[in-house]
Amino acid sequence: MKRNIILLAGLFFLAVACQEKTEKKEGLVVTNAVELQSAIDSAKAGDEIIMANGVWKDIQIRFDGQGTEDQPITLRAETPGQVFIEGISDLKFGGQYLVVSGLYFRNGYTPSNTVIDFKFDKDQVANHCRFTNSVIDGYNQLSRDKMDHWVEFWGRNNQMDHCYLAGKANEGPTVRVEIKGRKNIKNFHQIVNNHFGPRPRKGGPKGETIQLGDSFSSMSPSNTTVANNLFEECNGEVEVISSKTNFNEFRNNVFYKSEGSLVTRHGNYCIIDGNYFIGDGKSENVGGIRLINTGHVVTNNYFYNLIGKSFRSPLAVMNGIPKSPLNRYNQVTDVVVAYNTYVNCPSPWQFGVGTNISQKEVLPLSEIRSARPIRTVVANNLIYNEQGDPSPIVEHDQADGVTFASNFIQNQGVSFAGRKGLSTADLQLEKVGENVFMPTTTTAMEAYMGFEFDQIKTDIFGNSRENDTSIGAMTKAPVADPMILDKTKYGADWYSNVKEEREPSILEVKPEDNDLAVKIAAAQAGDVILLAAGQYQLSESLAINKAITIQSKDDNNPAQIVYTGAEGTPAFAMNPKGELTLAKVKLSGTGTQQAFASLQKNMSSHYNLTVNGCEIRDFDFVLKAYKETFAEEISFINTVIQNCENGIELSQETNDKGDYNVEFLTIDHCTFDDVKANVVDYYRGGYDESTIGGNLSVTNSTFTQSGSKESTGILINSRGIVNVNIEGNTFRNNPIKLVALLWGAKNNTHANNEISNSGKILVEENLKLTLVY
Amino acid sequence: MKRNIILLAGLFFLAVACQEKTEKKEGLVVTNAVELQSAIDSAKAGDEIIMANGVWKDIQIRFDGQGTEDQPITLRAETPGQVFIEGISDLKFGGQYLVVSGLYFRNGYTPSNTVIDFKFDKDQVANHCRFTNSVIDGYNQLSRDKMDHWVEFWGRNNQMDHCYLAGKANEGPTVRVEIKGRKNIKNFHQIVNNHFGPRPRKGGPKGETIQLGDSFSSMSPSNTTVANNLFEECNGEVEVISSKTNFNEFRNNVFYKSEGSLVTRHGNYCIIDGNYFIGDGKSENVGGIRLINTGHVVTNNYFYNLIGKSFRSPLAVMNGIPKSPLNRYNQVTDVVVAYNTYVNCPSPWQFGVGTNISQKEVLPLSEIRSARPIRTVVANNLIYNEQGDPSPIVEHDQADGVTFASNFIQNQGVSFAGRKGLSTADLQLEKVGENVFMPTTTTAMEAYMGFEFDQIKTDIFGNSRENDTSIGAMTKAPVADPMILDKTKYGADWYSNVKEEREPSILEVKPEDNDLAVKIAAAQAGDVILLAAGQYQLSESLAINKAITIQSKDDNNPAQIVYTGAEGTPAFAMNPKGELTLAKVKLSGTGTQQAFASLQKNMSSHYNLTVNGCEIRDFDFVLKAYKETFAEEISFINTVIQNCENGIELSQETNDKGDYNVEFLTIDHCTFDDVKANVVDYYRGGYDESTIGGNLSVTNSTFTQSGSKESTGILINSRGIVNVNIEGNTFRNNPIKLVALLWGAKNNTHANNEISNSGKILVEENLKLTLVY
Repeated sequence: MKRNIILLAGLFFLAVACQEKTEKKEGLVVTNAVELQSAIDSAKAGDEIIMANGVWKDIQIRFDGQGTEDQPITLRAETPGQVFIEGISDLKFGGQYLVVSGLYFRNGYTPSNTVIDFKFDKDQVANHCRFTNSVIDGYNQLSRDKMDHWVEFWGRNNQMDHCYLAGKANEGPTVRVEIKGRKNIKNFHQIVNNHFGPRPRKGGPKGETIQLGDSFSSMSPSNTTVANNLFEECNGEVEVISSKTNFNEFRNNVFYKSEGSLVTRHGNYCIIDGNYFIGDGKSENVGGIRLINTGHVVTNNYFYNLIGKSFRSPLAVMNGIPKSPLNRYNQVTDVVVAYNTYVNCPSPWQFGVGTNISQKEVLPLSEIRSARPIRTVVANNLIYNEQGDPSPIVEHDQADGVTFASNFIQNQGVSFAGRKGLSTADLQLEKVGENVFMPTTTTAMEAYMGFEFDQIKTDIFGNSRENDTSIGAMTKAPVADPMILDKTKYGADWYSNVKEEREPSILEVKPEDNDLAVKIAAAQAGDVILLAAGQYQLSESLAINKAITIQSKDDNNPAQIVYTGAEGTPAFAMNPKGELTLAKVKLSGTGTQQAFASLQKNMSSHYNLTVNGCEIRDFDFVLKAYKETFAEEISFINTVIQNCENGIELSQETNDKGDYNVEFLTIDHCTFDDVKANVVDYYRGGYDESTIGGNLSVTNSTFTQSGSKESTGILINSRGIVNVNIEGNTFRNNPIKLVALLWGAKNNTHANNEISNSGKILVEENLKLTLVY
Repeated sequence: MKRNIILLAGLFFLAVACQEKTEKKEGLVVTNAVELQSAIDSAKAGDEIIMANGVWKDIQIRFDGQGTEDQPITLRAETPGQVFIEGISDLKFGGQYLVVSGLYFRNGYTPSNTVIDFKFDKDQVANHCRFTNSVIDGYNQLSRDKMDHWVEFWGRNNQMDHCYLAGKANEGPTVRVEIKGRKNIKNFHQIVNNHFGPRPRKGGPKGETIQLGDSFSSMSPSNTTVANNLFEECNGEVEVISSKTNFNEFRNNVFYKSEGSLVTRHGNYCIIDGNYFIGDGKSENVGGIRLINTGHVVTNNYFYNLIGKSFRSPLAVMNGIPKSPLNRYNQVTDVVVAYNTYVNCPSPWQFGVGTNISQKEVLPLSEIRSARPIRTVVANNLIYNEQGDPSPIVEHDQADGVTFASNFIQNQGVSFAGRKGLSTADLQLEKVGENVFMPTTTTAMEAYMGFEFDQIKTDIFGNSRENDTSIGAMTKAPVADPMILDKTKYGADWYSNVKEEREPSILEVKPEDNDLAVKIAAAQAGDVILLAAGQYQLSESLAINKAITIQSKDDNNPAQIVYTGAEGTPAFAMNPKGELTLAKVKLSGTGTQQAFASLQKNMSSHYNLTVNGCEIRDFDFVLKAYKETFAEEISFINTVIQNCENGIELSQETNDKGDYNVEFLTIDHCTFDDVKANVVDYYRGGYDESTIGGNLSVTNSTFTQSGSKESTGILINSRGIVNVNIEGNTFRNNPIKLVALLWGAKNNTHANNEISNSGKILVEENLKLTLVY
């Protein structure tokens, strides 16, 4: 009884304490889902709910409540970054003036279509809610075709800021703003100060980092702001940001080595001001700004070291389809591109991008982009080239509807195709920060004063343009390096994606220890396993789920791996995030297995494979990729492949939605002998001009006695792959009809191949493909 | 010398006076084009230029200048309405804060594309300019196909107010707002307090009274206001107002007996609030509001005595084309129709209007309207029927994407097809003004509170809705009759289109006086000419250019007119505005002329023709209509037609743009005997679903021995005509294949015809036609 009294007193004390806490607007700590829900249910304006540190698994947070502007209701981590949301979990906002802060989503995926949703359902949307200082990392569905969005905006005046999002591998934009329904228009959402970390190539469409609406809502005003974010290696697809609604603003973002562009895909009257597009001068996939539709204003942007072409050029102005269907390409009209600076970007301005008049034969008229940009002004821009550029302006179709005025170029004396409105100028380059250079001059350059140019009030650094007639994005250098890549300025303050360099460990394995699988499992990412000479008998698949190198210790005496596992199983099972480099190894099977294969399902992330200096023989498949799997890079170098039923098979995306199974497939200095079918089989189905992917390189290799059971009669199948190069190979005595069937209208090339008794290489200009849309 | 000094002194005095005038901002009177231009050239803010009373012929006014908000530059008539702009004239604004007032445009046409233009050219547009208290009446191009606009808006913040515009007969909207180009968007133009007087039927498309933009600028914000105007018999085509841009507002306008609708043809997010749509309960052509696209809000409107159907129903919500081409039909989404009142409008709400799924055979897929309205709310509306209506809601296609809530109907106990959200209520009708009735009730009706319904703050009369839960457009009756048709409230204050009734004069003519042509010329519009019995020899055409009736004095002894004019000339030459009623007359030719014909060109307005109780014989053509001519009504009643090479020929619009030569062609109780070709030939070419015209009625008539030379083998040709009725006729011994080929999908009917030895009537469900677009 006494104990009970004490207990009751304790409870009373606790209750009073809690009440006081609530009144004082101090936080209420919750430790499980029931407490959390209870706290949410009873929360009032100004309340703070604190999730205790630790792992919260399989939790669906439904955050409803009515905060106020001055007194929001806050749900926060006890310690920012120490509350881990894992497993099958998600979070939805359903009220107003609600704040969520400090959470870390990882090791799981959402059971709904969203990880963070600014709605409960279409009737109950969130307004004035905020998701901040949080991380979502690799929170992927198990299969690539399972679509979700990590953050979905609904309602109005919601915000995501200071978050880090990275590693989305499955279908669907990372962030999506939905504006269907009157509740969701004129939303003035803010997506600001975030760090969008690396998003791997998706291998097909629907891998945008941010998508604002869709074509079906492209007539509606969205008024969303995307500002001050860092987009780092956002490589999901050709559009890093896909703007599909009206009146959106993109300001002061940094796009760093992101393989895609900021694209005004649908919708009109967007503002793109003060952004940095930084390339590495090496990748042609890193893009800039691609324009479609009406009324956009592109000002004060800085482009550096971009070498992308056409769709991916620094400024790509597309041709439209006359009277375009709603989901295709409207003509570019009434666009202004002014006061931008391009440093070391060859052919930065490309017009009539996407023109496909020549493809009238194979495409319906409603797909033909023949409507050139009109009523468009390109003025007061600066181009600085360290190496002179013979064609700073590329006209895929005539830019006769574009007015050029007061643009200046330092072209190192190299002459270029002239255009009134683009003049040479004597510019010097001043470094004002890492990756940021400012062309300067003492020569007077008169700025063109277009309609409403007086409303361009500042430069990229925020300097006033009043009483200043500077050309280009910068009127004067900032006092200090703007530190555009200083990651502490973006994302969650408790999180950094900067990895410390680690010296890889070298683990030695001997045949007699029979511990290869154990050593692989024990290795850390980046480690190297050295195989002592001898024969390794392997009766079960080796699971590769991290970056690892396996190579013979003695180049001159390579290790032999003999795989005797079950029929249809692989010697090396490529798991998500598995990155295998196999070097100087002789690998053989018993004719019924695969040398390498992806998992058959649950490939929630990509894998990579490099095979160098190996011998592979007596398998059913050299490489077998299953549906919904994706590798960024697969390379066979200096490798001999012999006596296999099938070769390298990456052709499972047969539903023709534009997907494919590998981004780069490289075969160099290899020998294929007696590979009976699918010698090289790499497929992308579905015509979709904006997915520009698939890269096949077959060089300096020899193919003999192969293809005898190939049903297509083609030795190297690359149907639908956009970039193909077949060069310097020898094809001898292969019982096939064609060595390859190439797509002439795309970047498919062949050269210096020696073909005897092996059919020929055929180029078909316009391949007939199913339309994706 | 002395005289010179006096002259100089006088000039000096004048100059000083003028200078003083300018300083005092008094008006400077100008009397000719040179003075006017000089005055404009030297005008400063605050100046007033006065055009002297009288006729100004062939003048092109270019009004440039820089007024200010407080001190505009004004160009005005000395006396409003006494400055007549005639001949080949026009006026263009080219500056800012310019006002034009008191002008009267008549008896001429513009040499450019506009009568009033708010631009000089695309670079020099007007801003803050105003055209006021003026009239444009019948200022037509000479031929129908010559396109112009009477008032064209460009720039921003321009206004047309208190103007009267009527009688436009040629191609092109009367008023058009252009928004192509950044200078012209977000224009906030005001079209207010005008009187749009009768615009005759145009007989084809492009006869709108107001058109805001076009499909190619339908993505741009226009923000134009059309308010407090009277639209009286604006019958030009099926769209009185065609809104094709975004964010336009239509407020408190009165549509009176206008054969068309307010249509949101392209563009989105328009507001249609507080308008009156008044029909006569007789014409099915008088429409209401037709909705296409996204986001429109239709509130507080009043619909009275409208019996239009489908496209012309009081509320027509269309089906869209999935992924519609830019110039076709987008789906209806996110629309609100709330707080409207419908009095005596059968089947006022029609959904899925324009569905044509059944026409997949004859139309391309990009023409098939199968996308039903979605996310649309119809709430808090009132319907009052004096006669119960079994189908207040018509679903041409399912309205399953429409939410109905708190709508109420007084249906006089007549049961109707049920729909959740539309309930019967015990309503009484209270007259609150001419044509304005308010349904009232003592029964409580709870209003539905939809998203942002709290922003519908007033009713149609401006009464506050605060603390008021009334359903329908009216919360309470106004103190006095709102006098919506009081014409003194609209248009120029010095002009009225109310014609005083005049007793027609009766002019008698005798054969022996040989003065029929003289009497016709001398007659006033509306007069009657009585022909004494006897034979009238006529060797030249009679020109009919006004309303006139010519009839035999003695019914029992009809006058005979024998036309002996040249081959290919008509007995009666129908001039623009000619309206002839010919009654009880025997008219004959010599086989080579026409009984009636339009002019061959310069038909700047329409004509009408009624032939009643006549006999017509021995002509080449009974009626010959030339290209670009148009009659509103042509009727042959109780008339015998015999021995003519051709009959009634109205088939010249063969360029297939949707035009046709007569709106209503009526043949009743007539006899056609031995008419060899083109017996009845009435043609409209070009498929255009929104031109709903052409009306042919052939009833109670007898056709014998006709069609022997008809190349088509069809007796009554009505290809492309939408409304055809062939009923109660006798067809006997006509050497033809078909009596008629009817269009089943349209309103083509036939009944109770007696056909012997004359082929048959064939109905083709889906006629194949050229697409207009």
